Amino acid sequence: MKTRIERDCLGEMEIDDASYFGIQTHRMMKVSGAAGYPVIAYPDLHRALFQIKKACAKANAEVGALDAQVAQAIVSACDKLLEGGYEKEFPLDMLQGGGYTCVNMNVNEVIGNLANEILTGHKGSDQVHPNTHVNMAQSTNDTIPSATHLAIAPRLDVIIERLQALHSSFEKKADEFKDVVKVGRTCWQDALPLTLGQEFGGYASLIARLIKKLQAVRPGCFELVMGGSAVGTGLGASSGYMQAFYKHISSDLGEKVSPQANIFDGFQNPDFFVTVSGLIKEVATSLSKISKDLRLMSSGPRSGFMEITLPALSPGSSIMPGKINPTVPEMVIQIAHQVVGNDVAIAMAYDEGELDLNVWDATFYKCLFENLQLVGEEILILKRDCIDGITANRDRCRDEAQSSLAISTVVAATQGYPLGVKVAHYAKEKGLTVKKAVLEMGLMTKAEADHLLDPMLLVDPEKMAQAIAEWRAGKH
Amino acid sequence: MKTRIERDCLGEMEIDDASYFGIQTHRMMKVSGAAGYPVIAYPDLHRALFQIKKACAKANAEVGALDAQVAQAIVSACDKLLEGGYEKEFPLDMLQGGGYTCVNMNVNEVIGNLANEILTGHKGSDQVHPNTHVNMAQSTNDTIPSATHLAIAPRLDVIIERLQALHSSFEKKADEFKDVVKVGRTCWQDALPLTLGQEFGGYASLIARLIKKLQAVRPGCFELVMGGSAVGTGLGASSGYMQAFYKHISSDLGEKVSPQANIFDGFQNPDFFVTVSGLIKEVATSLSKISKDLRLMSSGPRSGFMEITLPALSPGSSIMPGKINPTVPEMVIQIAHQVVGNDVAIAMAYDEGELDLNVWDATFYKCLFENLQLVGEEILILKRDCIDGITANRDRCRDEAQSSLAISTVVAATQGYPLGVKVAHYAKEKGLTVKKAVLEMGLMTKAEADHLLDPMLLVDPEKMAQAIAEWRAGKH
Amino acid sequence: MKTRIERDCLGEMEIDDASYFGIQTHRMMKVSGAAGYPVIAYPDLHRALFQIKKACAKANAEVGALDAQVAQAIVSACDKLLEGGYEKEFPLDMLQGGGYTCVNMNVNEVIGNLANEILTGHKGSDQVHPNTHVNMAQSTNDTIPSATHLAIAPRLDVIIERLQALHSSFEKKADEFKDVVKVGRTCWQDALPLTLGQEFGGYASLIARLIKKLQAVRPGCFELVMGGSAVGTGLGASSGYMQAFYKHISSDLGEKVSPQANIFDGFQNPDFFVTVSGLIKEVATSLSKISKDLRLMSSGPRSGFMEITLPALSPGSSIMPGKINPTVPEMVIQIAHQVVGNDVAIAMAYDEGELDLNVWDATFYKCLFENLQLVGEEILILKRDCIDGITANRDRCRDEAQSSLAISTVVAATQGYPLGVKVAHYAKEKGLTVKKAVLEMGLMTKAEADHLLDPMLLVDPEKMAQAIAEWRAGKH
Amino acid sequence: MKTRIERDCLGEMEIDDASYFGIQTHRMMKVSGAAGYPVIAYPDLHRALFQIKKACAKANAEVGALDAQVAQAIVSACDKLLEGGYEKEFPLDMLQGGGYTCVNMNVNEVIGNLANEILTGHKGSDQVHPNTHVNMAQSTNDTIPSATHLAIAPRLDVIIERLQALHSSFEKKADEFKDVVKVGRTCWQDALPLTLGQEFGGYASLIARLIKKLQAVRPGCFELVMGGSAVGTGLGASSGYMQAFYKHISSDLGEKVSPQANIFDGFQNPDFFVTVSGLIKEVATSLSKISKDLRLMSSGPRSGFMEITLPALSPGSSIMPGKINPTVPEMVIQIAHQVVGNDVAIAMAYDEGELDLNVWDATFYKCLFENLQLVGEEILILKRDCIDGITANRDRCRDEAQSSLAISTVVAATQGYPLGVKVAHYAKEKGLTVKKAVLEMGLMTKAEADHLLDPMLLVDPEKMAQAIAEWRAGKH
Repeated sequence: MKTRIERDCLGEMEIDDASYFGIQTHRMMKVSGAAGYPVIAYPDLHRALFQIKKACAKANAEVGALDAQVAQAIVSACDKLLEGGYEKEFPLDMLQGGGYTCVNMNVNEVIGNLANEILTGHKGSDQVHPNTHVNMAQSTNDTIPSATHLAIAPRLDVIIERLQALHSSFEKKADEFKDVVKVGRTCWQDALPLTLGQEFGGYASLIARLIKKLQAVRPGCFELVMGGSAVGTGLGASSGYMQAFYKHISSDLGEKVSPQANIFDGFQNPDFFVTVSGLIKEVATSLSKISKDLRLMSSGPRSGFMEITLPALSPGSSIMPGKINPTVPEMVIQIAHQVVGNDVAIAMAYDEGELDLNVWDATFYKCLFENLQLVGEEILILKRDCIDGITANRDRCRDEAQSSLAISTVVAATQGYPLGVKVAHYAKEKGLTVKKAVLEMGLMTKAEADHLLDPMLLVDPEKMAQAIAEWRAGKH
Repeated sequence: MKTRIERDCLGEMEIDDASYFGIQTHRMMKVSGAAGYPVIAYPDLHRALFQIKKACAKANAEVGALDAQVAQAIVSACDKLLEGGYEKEFPLDMLQGGGYTCVNMNVNEVIGNLANEILTGHKGSDQVHPNTHVNMAQSTNDTIPSATHLAIAPRLDVIIERLQALHSSFEKKADEFKDVVKVGRTCWQDALPLTLGQEFGGYASLIARLIKKLQAVRPGCFELVMGGSAVGTGLGASSGYMQAFYKHISSDLGEKVSPQANIFDGFQNPDFFVTVSGLIKEVATSLSKISKDLRLMSSGPRSGFMEITLPALSPGSSIMPGKINPTVPEMVIQIAHQVVGNDVAIAMAYDEGELDLNVWDATFYKCLFENLQLVGEEILILKRDCIDGITANRDRCRDEAQSSLAISTVVAATQGYPLGVKVAHYAKEKGLTVKKAVLEMGLMTKAEADHLLDPMLLVDPEKMAQAIAEWRAGKH
Repeated sequence: MKTRIERDCLGEMEIDDASYFGIQTHRMMKVSGAAGYPVIAYPDLHRALFQIKKACAKANAEVGALDAQVAQAIVSACDKLLEGGYEKEFPLDMLQGGGYTCVNMNVNEVIGNLANEILTGHKGSDQVHPNTHVNMAQSTNDTIPSATHLAIAPRLDVIIERLQALHSSFEKKADEFKDVVKVGRTCWQDALPLTLGQEFGGYASLIARLIKKLQAVRPGCFELVMGGSAVGTGLGASSGYMQAFYKHISSDLGEKVSPQANIFDGFQNPDFFVTVSGLIKEVATSLSKISKDLRLMSSGPRSGFMEITLPALSPGSSIMPGKINPTVPEMVIQIAHQVVGNDVAIAMAYDEGELDLNVWDATFYKCLFENLQLVGEEILILKRDCIDGITANRDRCRDEAQSSLAISTVVAATQGYPLGVKVAHYAKEKGLTVKKAVLEMGLMTKAEADHLLDPMLLVDPEKMAQAIAEWRAGKH
Repeated sequence: MKTRIERDCLGEMEIDDASYFGIQTHRMMKVSGAAGYPVIAYPDLHRALFQIKKACAKANAEVGALDAQVAQAIVSACDKLLEGGYEKEFPLDMLQGGGYTCVNMNVNEVIGNLANEILTGHKGSDQVHPNTHVNMAQSTNDTIPSATHLAIAPRLDVIIERLQALHSSFEKKADEFKDVVKVGRTCWQDALPLTLGQEFGGYASLIARLIKKLQAVRPGCFELVMGGSAVGTGLGASSGYMQAFYKHISSDLGEKVSPQANIFDGFQNPDFFVTVSGLIKEVATSLSKISKDLRLMSSGPRSGFMEITLPALSPGSSIMPGKINPTVPEMVIQIAHQVVGNDVAIAMAYDEGELDLNVWDATFYKCLFENLQLVGEEILILKRDCIDGITANRDRCRDEAQSSLAISTVVAATQGYPLGVKVAHYAKEKGLTVKKAVLEMGLMTKAEADHLLDPMLLVDPEKMAQAIAEWRAGKH
């Protein structure tokens, strides 16, 4: 095994020269490993760091602080890393103290060795030093939070795009089910009729609103604390570096990237992560609510609500033949548990921010990107393997709608609540539909009842208002 | 005791005629009481309901559905209630099932009896019926969520106004402390210097951002589901009622009130409460973070950080003479615990929304308004009894700043990281300041060190960049 | 207004002499009020403090540190307070910083003035000083956590007693419903039959286990940190005081009260509150789970599961006549939201314990006693107004049981899973019961099917095993 | 590629014959993948399932339901799997709906093919069918929760063992630091002295108590619902199967395994997971509290509390030379965030249990085993890389202790609180130690002060009580 010697402020170490990572990564590998999987399991942070290191090198070269050749080697190294294939060079565990200083140094070391190799043919720091050059004018304290911000954007984009497809699916179903009248339910008790299409239209409307909320927070991904270096004062940066950095990173990403209004505030308060987490929680719990509806409406096949049928994806029991479970909605419901839990973890990490830097980067990264991962994937699956294949059990729905005692509300609306109560009682005791009760009680003619108590009329506010008005006009 | 007989769909009851509330309120009083305090402990919901009932009466009269005289009596009754003094008429406990149907009916009954009394001189439903007239074209399902929306606005206004005052206090302190240089800290370890003013400026910046976020959600308070009645279809409403309602309520409140884009969605998904709760959580945890900083910076008086002194409000011990505690920051920290906990409760209630209506109004109301109450009050106290009276221990702060080994970063930035490490080691081992170490090691002249290692220079990014540039220019 | 002058370490104040509380209470009244309701809203802590102060006075007198006459006056004052009627003397808000030092001092002041009045006829500290005498050898840091421990016990006792009654109700229902066969459901899909009695028997078993868990933690209420005074070292206490205190408090309460094994640990770590909170959360979420079952099983009355009927407590709609809501289960479900939320708050307060004392007494007290209050009350209501009045819809249940396709499991168990699948398919496609499918497919004789596919057989493990054995024996 | 054809109730599929997993696993692989890592990432559940399947085969053979040769092949297959090396045969994602039916079937399929191969030399179900034979008398509904129970035990054992080692470390440090007197702190303000050893003794005591709590819940891991099959009624099981199963599993594991008291309850209510999660949360937050203490006590090196020094593990900054961070305590703090969050997820999943089975196995497994993993690992790291290497800064600690104004408590205890206040004021205003103030004020002789105000006396309750008694005796 070929080795090399590296030094840091705690001493020196002999390192396998096959690895691009160096002494500081080695030190932290020894004391990490609690989670059992690496930070790079969600590769977004590393990718964003490569972009940041690249833009920093360009900026430092532009203002004369960094040798042009060294800068170019750093840029090339970053480009190699962005192409992928170096995952094993980033072995650090997901849960780390020290504000992910080790993650920043791991990246600095790998870029440094790659860049040194480009310039000299061998790894080492003789031409490119991980701290002096790769990390020039930077600190963990500005690079890690900035990279986390940048890393959120592509995840949001995936979620937005998939929500748009889901929205479209719900709208199609709303149209497909627009004449499937069924009983509405509040407190899980029979209420007035509505259409299955109106229910799915409600889902579509919710998704549209969530998309807008996500789009509204997206620009925050591009407001960074780069330039603050160690404590927000920017110590170590040359004049013009900060402007140059934002110019280059904006150009590289094709997005308008800018510094936060107050860098000290930015160091202290990563409330952006709390906001994003809260919104992802809204998405996850919204999808969970819809999934619970789908499970309930598809409960059966012979003894439940039986209003809709979900696509059958796999046998639902190891013992009961023919049983099919709503597995996708159940996956979505469980993801909401995790997402709410992670949102609590994020709130705690924000609440415990301290003095000049919130150092709980590992909590934010682990919990937020797990949520982004889970929600991004579940939308795809929910749409493709569940929503798009839902069918309605039209006859069952119509029977439900007609049987509801709540149709007595029409009597209450037209002839006063106390009479409505009498109709409901009569229908209940005799086991009749409201229509039959109204006829037996002599409150409407057959023609009136056929018109006024038709469930499809009841689901149309304008037509219903007109019908009531006509009826009142006729009576008075 | 004079009594009256009232009837509902479950039977009849003899009621003390001194009370304006009626049979349905009585029924639910018997099965409630878990919380031990009434909904009206936070009077906002009831006030909003009075406004809604008033606007509904006007709207129903305008479209010819309600007799003008009856409508006027309802309006007068609502105005009486808005003037206050009827709190004992609303005895229902905070935690109720049934989507606060009983709360809506309690309000309908009190308004009905008040209005009947206005018209007839006695309580009863002979002229004004709580369901038929007071609740006309309405349902619990549209009035309660709508009232909760409206009720949030004045609470947000109080919070915004008080945050503005707090922001102003932080800005004053930022200015007062602008030349108090101290050691910055990350991971609670000595880092580079910054000023106490920069830290307080960070607080001010955070508060300004939170205010903007609150202002951005405020319009959502005025997007209601009124007009949906029982399940979103608006059954029972006359043509024109909905437009008339929004006209009247807008006029009465002096705000632009409008219906949600999709009423079915509105019934299903009260995500607005989740959003507001999330934002109030951001405020509470932000204030908690600042409060923890204040406690830490004021720890002492002889063995802690001792950078600042908080106003002494009361003796801090029943046994140790002279001890003073940071009671206000500690109150703020504990409020954050409660606010985060209530936010979880709200997420659960949202997640469990079901079918055509989210019926967990009690969870939303109790937890959200407790949070609004706590946060509204704490801001006032934090500003008045803590922030405004903070003083800085300037000498202590400067001593800290000068002693920090992290000042070796200047050497790292000017002469490379490895040399910076040597300086830090030398200073640490010999127990010297970095400046003395640099001089002993012969790395700078006295004049250079006095200039480059002055903590007040280090806190100014532009001046520091210039100083480094000059030094480099001189060296090369 | 008659006034008196009081002094503390911050100065002096003129106080309305009608009040027994004094200068320190006044100071903190000015900076508190965030919650809007007082600590004494849950009177348990104050009652426990009166008991502690009383036992301390006896102990201090016994070891010669406190004048016997003064001690007797303090004891008499505590007895008066325990009789009640002094609530207005304890005006401090629920949320306070400083580890409830102000609450301890409020109690010391009121006892001091009462005791002084007993001895001298007037309020004041000339004979009995709140710190020197009432608080002798004590500190907020040992009295408040100890009082909170003691205060939990009677709350647990109420919960245990009410759970026992609920358990009895579930057992009665289990017996009443022992022959109500219905379809079992997993993933809300029809599964094998069981009896409604088996389901309610499961509820009873759960409640019995929860009672055992509560009983197991109860002794922890009587392990106190009294004797630790300010930081656990017991400074200020005379020899023998600690033993005397535990003797007197044990005797006064009729419980074996003892000091924690390590007082420093006790000061640092109030994990007992986390444990109790977790257990109360188990109770609340268990009742919530049961309540969701009840809502689902009672969904209808014409379009849901309709297996049971809950007692009708009040009209369930302001607009739909005759609708009845499951209000009690819904109250229980919402209480679980709050309880889980408060449990998070408590976890945060525990996690943030610091150095020699966890000072977040207000979070612990507010959140834990709210949970104890809510859970204690809901059990009473759930039993009385819901469980005891549940009736079963026997015919509906039996129809469900017979229709389930999962009965094909019997074929799978007797003749292999693949054949079971064929039966399920056949029954599903033809719209038959499994029994009819089995007969049409010629897999069993009529007599065999009547026996083997009888739902009441399927719910009895032993009889079913025997029937399968017999069938196998006959076949082979 | 060699393939085989498999069939289930939804149809047939051509499968790569290299895989032991079959059609049902393939179906669910297509709709899963939200988490991005497999269930077997925590291998415990699968290992427990292999044990269960093995014991079931033995039990079914023993009661004559399963052919002895088939049973033996299943046992052999399970033994192969327990030896390891088959991880890729279990590809299903961590988050799955359907109560982990697919996980059970994946295991059934792999065992079935392995067993068939043993008997016939090829994969397939001609001799051993995954449902009929491997899953005989079982259901997902009894095997998965039972396996999860069993899987917890070895994780608890690891945690207990490591906590015992940590306890020992704390005890050693308590002894090492028994004469390091320092200032105690409450509300982060200087209080009475105690020793660093007393503080570490508190930590040891806490750990000892947590160990006891863990040991108390461990037996619950061995109370299973095996025998309940699909809904708790045990349908499909032969007489004697259940007893035989518990005999074999007990023997195989060397533990007393038994059925839960009421299987229906067991199916409905996995409160054991809530209890375990709550306890793991107690461990995680306890370690977090201690870690926060360590960070605070080691804050510095020149401007913080500086009472102790933690082992230096890696450079603490990418920019500031010589800075060292408390990375291990920070990892522990962040793990607590995650553990609390996962505990919330688990509470939600328990709260949402439904009817005859709580189907949220994925939430329970993912969140609980992540917590067990994190806590198990962190204890090892915390002990080895932090606690064992802590050193005390004795001089600093003693200086702190002597400077504290709270030493005036001795005056309050001996001569009344008002005089104590005067001493504290005098010392504060003149910038003196309490001892010097007492001497200047003439309240004690030099000898008395040297004795009574010695910090090492103040930390010893008995000696202090005696000293006060002597002083009082001398004065009166």
